Amino acid sequence: MLKLSRLLLHSSRDPLSQKSLFREATGDFKLLRGITTQTVMSSAMQSSARDGNSAVKIFAPYSIYKGKAALSADPRLPTFSKLESGGYRVERRGVIMLTFWPAIGERKYDWDKRQVFALSATEVGSLISLGSKDSCEFFHDPSMLSSNAGQVRKSLSIKAHVDGSGYFISLSVVNNILKTNDRFVVPVTTAEFAVMRTAFTFALPHIMGWDQYTNQLPHGANQSSPKAVHELQSSEWDR
Amino acid sequence: MLKLSRLLLHSSRDPLSQKSLFREATGDFKLLRGITTQTVMSSAMQSSARDGNSAVKIFAPYSIYKGKAALSADPRLPTFSKLESGGYRVERRGVIMLTFWPAIGERKYDWDKRQVFALSATEVGSLISLGSKDSCEFFHDPSMLSSNAGQVRKSLSIKAHVDGSGYFISLSVVNNILKTNDRFVVPVTTAEFAVMRTAFTFALPHIMGWDQYTNQLPHGANQSSPKAVHELQSSEWDR
Amino acid sequence: MLKLSRLLLHSSRDPLSQKSLFREATGDFKLLRGITTQTVMSSAMQSSARDGNSAVKIFAPYSIYKGKAALSADPRLPTFSKLESGGYRVERRGVIMLTFWPAIGERKYDWDKRQVFALSATEVGSLISLGSKDSCEFFHDPSMLSSNAGQVRKSLSIKAHVDGSGYFISLSVVNNILKTNDRFVVPVTTAEFAVMRTAFTFALPHIMGWDQYTNQLPHGANQSSPKAVHELQSSEWDR
Amino acid sequence: MLKLSRLLLHSSRDPLSQKSLFREATGDFKLLRGITTQTVMSSAMQSSARDGNSAVKIFAPYSIYKGKAALSADPRLPTFSKLESGGYRVERRGVIMLTFWPAIGERKYDWDKRQVFALSATEVGSLISLGSKDSCEFFHDPSMLSSNAGQVRKSLSIKAHVDGSGYFISLSVVNNILKTNDRFVVPVTTAEFAVMRTAFTFALPHIMGWDQYTNQLPHGANQSSPKAVHELQSSEWDR
Repeated sequence: MLKLSRLLLHSSRDPLSQKSLFREATGDFKLLRGITTQTVMSSAMQSSARDGNSAVKIFAPYSIYKGKAALSADPRLPTFSKLESGGYRVERRGVIMLTFWPAIGERKYDWDKRQVFALSATEVGSLISLGSKDSCEFFHDPSMLSSNAGQVRKSLSIKAHVDGSGYFISLSVVNNILKTNDRFVVPVTTAEFAVMRTAFTFALPHIMGWDQYTNQLPHGANQSSPKAVHELQSSEWDR
Repeated sequence: MLKLSRLLLHSSRDPLSQKSLFREATGDFKLLRGITTQTVMSSAMQSSARDGNSAVKIFAPYSIYKGKAALSADPRLPTFSKLESGGYRVERRGVIMLTFWPAIGERKYDWDKRQVFALSATEVGSLISLGSKDSCEFFHDPSMLSSNAGQVRKSLSIKAHVDGSGYFISLSVVNNILKTNDRFVVPVTTAEFAVMRTAFTFALPHIMGWDQYTNQLPHGANQSSPKAVHELQSSEWDR
Repeated sequence: MLKLSRLLLHSSRDPLSQKSLFREATGDFKLLRGITTQTVMSSAMQSSARDGNSAVKIFAPYSIYKGKAALSADPRLPTFSKLESGGYRVERRGVIMLTFWPAIGERKYDWDKRQVFALSATEVGSLISLGSKDSCEFFHDPSMLSSNAGQVRKSLSIKAHVDGSGYFISLSVVNNILKTNDRFVVPVTTAEFAVMRTAFTFALPHIMGWDQYTNQLPHGANQSSPKAVHELQSSEWDR
Repeated sequence: MLKLSRLLLHSSRDPLSQKSLFREATGDFKLLRGITTQTVMSSAMQSSARDGNSAVKIFAPYSIYKGKAALSADPRLPTFSKLESGGYRVERRGVIMLTFWPAIGERKYDWDKRQVFALSATEVGSLISLGSKDSCEFFHDPSMLSSNAGQVRKSLSIKAHVDGSGYFISLSVVNNILKTNDRFVVPVTTAEFAVMRTAFTFALPHIMGWDQYTNQLPHGANQSSPKAVHELQSSEWDR
């Protein structure tokens, strides 16, 4: 069984740590004096809003209701910052959010008692590459790097059934501050896991922000902004 | 052989059941007093209509004509409701619709005698993860939870050829009200099944509504609607 | 080795045959008296043209240059007809076009001597599901159902190397009218075949027209055209 | 172990070589007297710019920080040239750029000492089809075909761990001009490699330019430009 203890130091969870690391690691941003914060409420924005897409909250979770608990999954997209150069970089990476909530009777579930676990891109990679006999476990400390470090411990475990017919997905949350200890176990069939695998594979480039690398119509490339294009296309040959 | 008897209680087929369950299971919607029904025939709509895409009916089935029957598959997308908060949630989930109709002569088929079977996301997951020796079977009762429950029974079976060279896909419909009993069998080659697997894998995130989780241009995220973005990005760390 | 002899009768190659079959097989189109041919040069079209995408010819073939011949592949999208109901149906299905042309010297190739082979969706399905030891062969008669039937015979063969390190892709074209007999063989590495498999898997839903089944923003669905949506969503439950 | 020595002659790296080859190999372009360079700063462009997408530089690398070095990957899209016919062809193919930079202390990395390696479509195909025990190696000479040929040698190696638990990805750069010799080794877990495989599979059609083959709404196809559509759809049957 694979055990992955995720160090948050390089993750996007702690914005301060991540930002400073990013600056450190990617020196070419040092010249940029920060993020453009000026709001230009131009027709561009109106156009975007007019398309009805911008920052619209979508609720389309994939939910699995079982005897003792329910589990749902939905993607949370990254946020981007505008750079002074006019480009954009991922500011906060996306995740696939898993939500567990307990059954409190026949086909009744208590949403108020839910607990969440946010899968990073790499954890999603682990999940979608699981073989039918494989298992994996992830550990999160939401308070890591704060004074509450170690007070809340979350662990998500995905364990294959012995006969390869599916998985148990369990979340355990030990909260030493609130003195609570929650545990949810949801058996997931091969078919349900195939939906998760397919949907997570679809979502992975989106939570990474790679869907933003999209070919634009050539007239854009060749005519309106040749310089930007040149920069975009700088290759190993230019070094 | 896998047998999957689908309970409709948690499915989207019975809107009333599904809605009440949804409300029960996702308490955070309790404060929303329903779906915005007001029609604002604004320029937004015109823009959308101008793009020519909105609610256009598309006919692009993948059809397989064999000796005794034909089979075609095409996706049916989910519907969304607008929430008072401005977001949208899936109201009726999408399916992949399988249609069978009998041969009535050489290369003649009778469309009027067709029968349909609507694959849910999880049933699609089952189909696309079938190994070359695997089989599965799904049961539907279209009248479930109504007074006609049990009167119509549909069963779809996908059975691998012994030599792994393809599958038999069969639909049986027993209708006790109309006193009919239809059965269709369509042999599907490995190549045809590969098309179905690939197309269904492509369609799955769409019938789930996950294609609506689409990164918008950063200016939308950072400038025009910071609040919405913040909500969108709330993570396990915020709890 | 798999041998697939493709009967064109149900394919899209012969528009007349296909149309009549389609009409026969899908009775619900009988009431439609044909395709709307009226051209409405409205702002909708201008908008579409303004996006720069409409019917733009793109040349982005994946090309493999080897000692004796070169091979390139690129997708050809389906065409759609507008129905009187306002919907659209696939009129001519898309293909992935393979083009072979011979080497006539070191790194010189003669494009004028090219021969093409148009892979249907099902043939693409066969190709992308080939194991590393598998082979397949397709036969086309471009003049099928015409008076020249049998005069030109094309056969495409994909044969795994014995050691699983790639494939030989060969096209043979025997033309009894022009008294020509062309044969091209292109060895393709595992890496090159992986590119073809991945790109063909990406392209398959597009040549089938399934990329047109795209969720629109909910306001479109709920507000501007409730009737169309209802029709779209009719399920097996409505029968 | 697979060894792939990439000849650049047919690659997009040397624009001159590639262009002449392209012209040679695809004779039907001979009549085109070059690329339309005229800039029409029309409302079309403004519209495109208004969407905020055109030639916007996006930074969303997938980065892996390990003890001795860090590795990041991000796609670089192809550029297109406008043809006199109104179509577009790929001018410079896209790549997936790998960047390595060394650790210079605990969690400190020196971006100024980075080295890059640009994976072609076929090299990406090799990487995404690697089995859990496979390895591959690519060699690049950035100065190939120039007077500096052979002076700089880059080699990228991906080597499976013996136990199948991941890979070592190493870049070695020997620069005889600057008298430098850099070597980076980054151990990559199965989960991280799964992210790369999934993201590269997503990106591959984009770096090839195949995402530009996109079905337009049928009114475009049937009404505004029938000629272009006819050309697009010319099949093997038309020859």
